[in-house]
Amino acid sequence: MAAEIDPHFTRNINEQAIAEVCQQLSDQFGKRFTTGMALREQHGHTTTGLVTQAPDGVVFVENTEDVSQVVSLCHDKDVPVIAFGAGSSLEGQLNAPFGGICIDLSAMNAIVSVSAEDLDCRVEAGVTRQQLNDYLRDTGLFFPIDPGAEATFGGMAATRASGTNAVRYGTMRDNILSLKAVMADGRVIETASRAKKSAAGYDLTRLLIGSEGTLGIITEITLKLSGIPQAISGGVCGFPDLESACNAVIMTIQSGIPVARIELLDVMQVKACNLHSKLGLKERPTLFVEFHGTERGVAEQADMFADIVEDCGGADFEWATRAEDRSRLWTARHSAYWASFALRPGSINVTSDACVPISRLADCVSETQRMIEEFGLIATIVGHVGDGNFHVQLLLDPEDRGEQERAELFLSQLAKLAISMGGTCTGEHGVGQGKMKHMEEEFGSALAYMAAIKKALDPKNIMNPGKIVPNFG
Amino acid sequence: MAAEIDPHFTRNINEQAIAEVCQQLSDQFGKRFTTGMALREQHGHTTTGLVTQAPDGVVFVENTEDVSQVVSLCHDKDVPVIAFGAGSSLEGQLNAPFGGICIDLSAMNAIVSVSAEDLDCRVEAGVTRQQLNDYLRDTGLFFPIDPGAEATFGGMAATRASGTNAVRYGTMRDNILSLKAVMADGRVIETASRAKKSAAGYDLTRLLIGSEGTLGIITEITLKLSGIPQAISGGVCGFPDLESACNAVIMTIQSGIPVARIELLDVMQVKACNLHSKLGLKERPTLFVEFHGTERGVAEQADMFADIVEDCGGADFEWATRAEDRSRLWTARHSAYWASFALRPGSINVTSDACVPISRLADCVSETQRMIEEFGLIATIVGHVGDGNFHVQLLLDPEDRGEQERAELFLSQLAKLAISMGGTCTGEHGVGQGKMKHMEEEFGSALAYMAAIKKALDPKNIMNPGKIVPNFG
Repeated sequence: MAAEIDPHFTRNINEQAIAEVCQQLSDQFGKRFTTGMALREQHGHTTTGLVTQAPDGVVFVENTEDVSQVVSLCHDKDVPVIAFGAGSSLEGQLNAPFGGICIDLSAMNAIVSVSAEDLDCRVEAGVTRQQLNDYLRDTGLFFPIDPGAEATFGGMAATRASGTNAVRYGTMRDNILSLKAVMADGRVIETASRAKKSAAGYDLTRLLIGSEGTLGIITEITLKLSGIPQAISGGVCGFPDLESACNAVIMTIQSGIPVARIELLDVMQVKACNLHSKLGLKERPTLFVEFHGTERGVAEQADMFADIVEDCGGADFEWATRAEDRSRLWTARHSAYWASFALRPGSINVTSDACVPISRLADCVSETQRMIEEFGLIATIVGHVGDGNFHVQLLLDPEDRGEQERAELFLSQLAKLAISMGGTCTGEHGVGQGKMKHMEEEFGSALAYMAAIKKALDPKNIMNPGKIVPNFG
Repeated sequence: MAAEIDPHFTRNINEQAIAEVCQQLSDQFGKRFTTGMALREQHGHTTTGLVTQAPDGVVFVENTEDVSQVVSLCHDKDVPVIAFGAGSSLEGQLNAPFGGICIDLSAMNAIVSVSAEDLDCRVEAGVTRQQLNDYLRDTGLFFPIDPGAEATFGGMAATRASGTNAVRYGTMRDNILSLKAVMADGRVIETASRAKKSAAGYDLTRLLIGSEGTLGIITEITLKLSGIPQAISGGVCGFPDLESACNAVIMTIQSGIPVARIELLDVMQVKACNLHSKLGLKERPTLFVEFHGTERGVAEQADMFADIVEDCGGADFEWATRAEDRSRLWTARHSAYWASFALRPGSINVTSDACVPISRLADCVSETQRMIEEFGLIATIVGHVGDGNFHVQLLLDPEDRGEQERAELFLSQLAKLAISMGGTCTGEHGVGQGKMKHMEEEFGSALAYMAAIKKALDPKNIMNPGKIVPNFG
């Protein structure tokens, strides 16, 4: 039956075929193809605790036609292909457990077109969000999704990324109109028109978003844009405990305040940001918030929020009225990942994320803190709590194997906890290799249909094998 | 190659197998199964100009287990199954060109649970939007998506429906967290968790939304809910010509005014609504608008909109300040389909929709009006123009074959026009049988991958065959 997971649909490393492909790519792409170990390892390197599994070669493509040629060749020879943008994924999405060719799309960084009247634009996969927002500055428009890293749009689409603004603007799922992609057989497709909505056919756009290069390689993206708000205001407030902070978030969402950002930092994360970004905040659970709208609208939202903070026992609500103060705050927030190293110099940082229905947020975060203590780990908690999404960053001694094993156990329990609360093992980092073991628990019988789709669109299993769907690599 | 469209993957009508299935369903479901012609025809009946193709029997299911049993049986015997909700689809989605069993889910109308704190709820597929909104009234929440018909949520999900509020609240694609569905082999899946966002695995939720029962039958839905706005205001304004009205819409969207509804009625539609709903409006291109927000926010939006109307040459902006006046307006808008019959009593109404990038809206609507005249047809234009989406309702003489042929040609040209402007042949009605012939033009090489997915998830092609993907029946 097509919908069964087929345990034999795995791959072996075919050294002979890989050598042939490398030779051919070298002939065709010259200096744009490399088998040098440093670049290969850099392209398999993942910002996780997972062991690096380098690809056999890296090809630097310049356009969709290049990608199509590489994929066609690899398809003919039955060799894996792995797409690479900025290398900022967190769950081993870039590892090459079966070898193969890494396709680096970072040179595909053209902003193809901007249609200000339609609030959309077209970019190549290697464009980064900061690059686009710099380019858009004079149009009064911006692209709101902001994962912590300076990721590429190809990578952001492929991992269904989100970030601090998702509570108001949605995730990559909600902000893409169409994709150009190279499929497993090398053919190029466009998934949809530029219309704002459509009821025509299967939603290939959403199927490719979040598929992490396992179904096709995204080469161009039509993005929805948003108007830069007329007014922005934001600030910081502290709470006596995590639960009060979570309750303030829950009440804010339930009141329908269209908050643009609402981020929780636990005591450890505040400590780290103080050390790294010199914020000088009191060390207690803290919310960073931001409101977008008209002058009057923003003032109204802020008033309503201030009432909620007071009701929840929050204190010292400090407004960052000047743009540079806000920028300092959010730069600190975006540096949270790097800041956490300051708590334990020389450590390795293993980051995970989970997402639960917001009614379970306080329970889930409290239980997570209890587990961190129980396992004797050092960790920060920070998150996009308006969506029920939070991150745990574990700071591990690279020499302490016992601690690493406890961390692994903790991460498994965190995923199970989120799933048991009606949530998901990953709100925004994706599955990659790291979360694959939780897919069956999260999806049950639905997983077999993901496997059937994978097999239908990539029958040779050459597209980023060993990711997302278990028993496929 | 898996991704090729296989012209042999079609079906024949297997009378023997159908007879066996009918016998078995009769034994098992008793009075809940019928082969009576009246009910069969009613269940194949479609609100279109398409010829009714009745199923061979109709089974009235009461729960997911019933659906699973019927589908399993039909899967074993290789007999088509077609899901039925309220019967309000417009593109022949319910026809049974290869015979088979219609599964009527209207008795599955339980509201399973409401989680007010999470702004979500769980409903069975047969629940209608009005039923849910009545039920929710005391919670301060509502479900915003409102297709013209009193559709069921199963049908709304399966056709990726939207409606007047979509410009602000999105479509069914954006307002569903998870689905329970019976797949082609009878197995039951849950597509996702209740978390507000997730980066885990392929987006089966979005794949089933809009698949019109060709990949699985949706039996339960977790819906996102919205807070009933603190304040609502709305009104009506007339314009000297269609272009000015479209320009006002375009400027409203581009200014970032979060308009909740913005609907265009052309002169003919205003005439029809006056006749049917006694609106007493001046007969000219007219916009119906509505704003949602706080008291102050709504006032601010209305002020900004009034300035735009003035700039665009609009006149006589009338506010419907009282709830009953607003209700009368929107009831008239929702009755537009029925109202149009008043223009030509005894006619049949063939409705189509198209959706283009908003920068092309004025061009597309003007060209559509020109084509209506060129083809010598009587038609109204009405639409959710904030999304670039509009409907054409043709009023045809049931006896005039020549007129019907001209109408068919017109509809084909309308679809081509929308596609040529970077839009889609259907913004919200779906593909069914009616738009299947435009799929290749709209999707090109991507269509082969839709076919591959269909074949992978429904290898026997029993799920609503002859819809969406051409060459599949």
